[in-house]
Amino acid sequence: MAEKRKDNKLKARLPRGLEDRGPIEIAATRRMIETIRQVYERYGFEPVETPAIEYTDALGKFLPDQDRPNEGVFSFQDDDEQWLSLRYDLTAPLARYVAENFETLPKPYRSYRFGWVFRNEKPGPGRFRQFMQFDADTVGSASPAADAEMCMMAADTMEALGIPRGSYVVKVWSRKLLDAVMDAVPELQGASPEKRLVVLRSIDKLDRVGPSGVQRLLDEGRKDESGDFTKGAGLSKSANNFITSASSSIYVTQFSNEALLSFDKRYETQISQFETGQRQPFNITEYVDLVKSYLAGRAVPASLETGLSELGQISDLINASGYGDRIRIDPSIVRGLEYYTGPVFEVDLMFPTTSADGKPVRFGSVGAGGRYDGLVSRFRGEPVPATGFSIGVSRLAAALMHLGKLDNKQQPGPVVVTVFDKDRLADYQNMVATLRAADIRAELYLGNPRNLGNQLKYADKRNAPCVVIQGSDEKAKGEVTIKDLIVGAELARLEKGREEHLQKQAEAQRSVPQAELVATVRNILARHGIS
Amino acid sequence: MAEKRKDNKLKARLPRGLEDRGPIEIAATRRMIETIRQVYERYGFEPVETPAIEYTDALGKFLPDQDRPNEGVFSFQDDDEQWLSLRYDLTAPLARYVAENFETLPKPYRSYRFGWVFRNEKPGPGRFRQFMQFDADTVGSASPAADAEMCMMAADTMEALGIPRGSYVVKVWSRKLLDAVMDAVPELQGASPEKRLVVLRSIDKLDRVGPSGVQRLLDEGRKDESGDFTKGAGLSKSANNFITSASSSIYVTQFSNEALLSFDKRYETQISQFETGQRQPFNITEYVDLVKSYLAGRAVPASLETGLSELGQISDLINASGYGDRIRIDPSIVRGLEYYTGPVFEVDLMFPTTSADGKPVRFGSVGAGGRYDGLVSRFRGEPVPATGFSIGVSRLAAALMHLGKLDNKQQPGPVVVTVFDKDRLADYQNMVATLRAADIRAELYLGNPRNLGNQLKYADKRNAPCVVIQGSDEKAKGEVTIKDLIVGAELARLEKGREEHLQKQAEAQRSVPQAELVATVRNILARHGIS
Repeated sequence: MAEKRKDNKLKARLPRGLEDRGPIEIAATRRMIETIRQVYERYGFEPVETPAIEYTDALGKFLPDQDRPNEGVFSFQDDDEQWLSLRYDLTAPLARYVAENFETLPKPYRSYRFGWVFRNEKPGPGRFRQFMQFDADTVGSASPAADAEMCMMAADTMEALGIPRGSYVVKVWSRKLLDAVMDAVPELQGASPEKRLVVLRSIDKLDRVGPSGVQRLLDEGRKDESGDFTKGAGLSKSANNFITSASSSIYVTQFSNEALLSFDKRYETQISQFETGQRQPFNITEYVDLVKSYLAGRAVPASLETGLSELGQISDLINASGYGDRIRIDPSIVRGLEYYTGPVFEVDLMFPTTSADGKPVRFGSVGAGGRYDGLVSRFRGEPVPATGFSIGVSRLAAALMHLGKLDNKQQPGPVVVTVFDKDRLADYQNMVATLRAADIRAELYLGNPRNLGNQLKYADKRNAPCVVIQGSDEKAKGEVTIKDLIVGAELARLEKGREEHLQKQAEAQRSVPQAELVATVRNILARHGIS
Repeated sequence: MAEKRKDNKLKARLPRGLEDRGPIEIAATRRMIETIRQVYERYGFEPVETPAIEYTDALGKFLPDQDRPNEGVFSFQDDDEQWLSLRYDLTAPLARYVAENFETLPKPYRSYRFGWVFRNEKPGPGRFRQFMQFDADTVGSASPAADAEMCMMAADTMEALGIPRGSYVVKVWSRKLLDAVMDAVPELQGASPEKRLVVLRSIDKLDRVGPSGVQRLLDEGRKDESGDFTKGAGLSKSANNFITSASSSIYVTQFSNEALLSFDKRYETQISQFETGQRQPFNITEYVDLVKSYLAGRAVPASLETGLSELGQISDLINASGYGDRIRIDPSIVRGLEYYTGPVFEVDLMFPTTSADGKPVRFGSVGAGGRYDGLVSRFRGEPVPATGFSIGVSRLAAALMHLGKLDNKQQPGPVVVTVFDKDRLADYQNMVATLRAADIRAELYLGNPRNLGNQLKYADKRNAPCVVIQGSDEKAKGEVTIKDLIVGAELARLEKGREEHLQKQAEAQRSVPQAELVATVRNILARHGIS
């Protein structure tokens, strides 16, 4: 139960991790979604939408957050005792949709959708329990060309949204190569899927905790700033060194039990060199050499070859289409969702920014995806390869807002028709209807019309460009008075008596025949560039 | 748990009462929402959105369906054991939002929003557990002008959506007059709110069950076609006659214990006369006379006077703005939600249509609303009057689809670049990138490129206007072949050898230098009016 206050009133409050959205945010998001939609349509994707509720087992349990009840998912029982859940992403429901409509869909099937998803997470700054995703998926193609297309579409989307080339990067890696690295480690060969997942999720935190943080996570565990302790994978020092080395692309070639190296400084230097163009891009040959050196003659895992071949094809396709400068092969990309099986990708924003309290912040990932060949197959009992990409709409909107690429100004408000004589409400209502019929945003003051001052304050708060007044004198003469509030505000800042003041004064308030109401208001709107 | 099949595969299926939506429906809804939004903006309303999840007691229990667990609401417990619910409408969350942000909002506060709402209803044809509403609300005004504005905005919205004047009607009544009728009945004067609610909901079913059905509901109860029995209010015959008489506006003036009259035939005649313009509109004086005649000298309930005065003011404002022909005072309007306190309104579509199985269907209500003065006050401990209007987006979309006012044709698909030589994927990908860069919807065939026939079938299924082919011959000559699939389909219907056939044949397939790819495709798109 929400808190009852002592005076027996309900307390009006939102549950933690949920948000209301105002006009500026709503308008900005609408424009953003329309831009993304246009890019996806150009790529031949077509819309399809699924509901927010699915059978719990149709969604599966693939979330990284396993510490919460129901593993991070909001669930409830239907009246026939079947378990239902709110979708936690748009991929699992799409898999259900495709499996259910398999015979009638074109194959491969390219589709897109946006909508709210729900996570029963521990709420925190920037961590919400309801947020919007915009997804695109290609189901029914095993070709790396489908993955390459996702990456190129992600790049085109960033530029369509006004993020300049060089300020974002699409990073690609492969779950298969991560498997290869784990397969190369003797102590992980027979390990449970859970243990391997702990390793993957340790690597996935590289961006946040740095290589030495990853090492602690692969070892005993790590305590974060809030004091929360994450239990580690308990790997040997040699395996730990190898995996950290490979995933941070800072190569050590001795994996003996020597003291753990501190990678962090070198990692930072390397990243900053990369971003300022002083360093060569990641070299896959060095990477393969690293794995082979660690194997020391043992058999090379099959997943290494498949993973490399797929990444190679993606690279070729991307270069052939001229996207080589925007898409980067990067071994730190893991993605936390368990259902990925092949190439994985992520869009990172490169520009630094500052948080509300003035601290420097890197935006990091605003979209991600990958190949999930097993998700549709769960329903079909036959292989149905699939790949997809998901944009975190709210995160990206915040980034665009910081970049100044989203309009975040208050829009002009409606014309306010004031109520001077409350017995003549019908007359004022009629003026409002006349303005609206002329396609002018207008409203009647609906509060208690005690005095005009109150109504003018209201009009100011509504950001109204002008107000319409008709007292008994004006009524007798068949006139209306129109006050231009924007000029009025300018007037207040000018010195009285000067020519400009006199001219503005004439502009600020005029009485005109009521028949000229629409024309006069139109002139004022035009004066201020309001359409 | 969803069913597991014998072969251990999950069954892909949606829970009952939920729906997926395809491209045609999504595009139609998007256009519809944009139209509604423009009308609401013109009325000076501004957008605000709340999340799908709220504290259960912040939403309150106001739904008509009380036979289901949690009274029709999907609920679950947070990890701190507080109860959360999915919103069942957009009004209760708005009340919470306004109460929480009361100090900073302009007052009166006009706002709009659309979004999904969830009801744990017994699913049935046309009854969904997730559906979209588009709401507008004015909070902080007790003036009937705010209610009148809602009705006029509803009318303007219908016309903006292409529903002609005369094909819809906005019906208005008052919860206060319904209270007056109940207050006039001695056996209901001390009755519990629950009992009075049973009476209200019986009247609310007038449209579906007719006056004799309402009489049964006010008496012992009624069995519907499916055999479900609804328990009645158990009123005396005299009270029953009075209430049925008042709410169906077919007046009997003798309320003694005579046999129950069958109102149905007279009601049908009256409605059809009304709709064909042969009958005078509902006369409020007759209604007041009816109540007074039933009272037979007892004191007139105070709610009668207040209700009449408010309806009178609404009528005046509507007539003054020229909306008198679109808005009708109608005593059958109740609305099932418990939170209404004053004027209530409903938009009904008047045109008949046929259901999927050919039976005639009346669309009935596509939007409704009313005054809910108590909803914000629950949080504030001070009176906060409010009124609102809600459009059932999915129901209205279905109506518009039937009227032919929503485009329901499959849109042209993308240009499909086929894969002739699978080692040259990068070349084909490059052609696709070139087309997309020229803002042409295009895609690479991503399936298994076994043969061209399969790829052409795929292109047909995608509704592609044309396909691009480059075999080794074309490659050697630096050419591409472009097949116009629309002309190709026409060609198949023409007699061979005739001049028209020969000309179409030339149009249907051309080889051109690769540099002319974009120009040639543009010509084909222009030929078929595709932008």
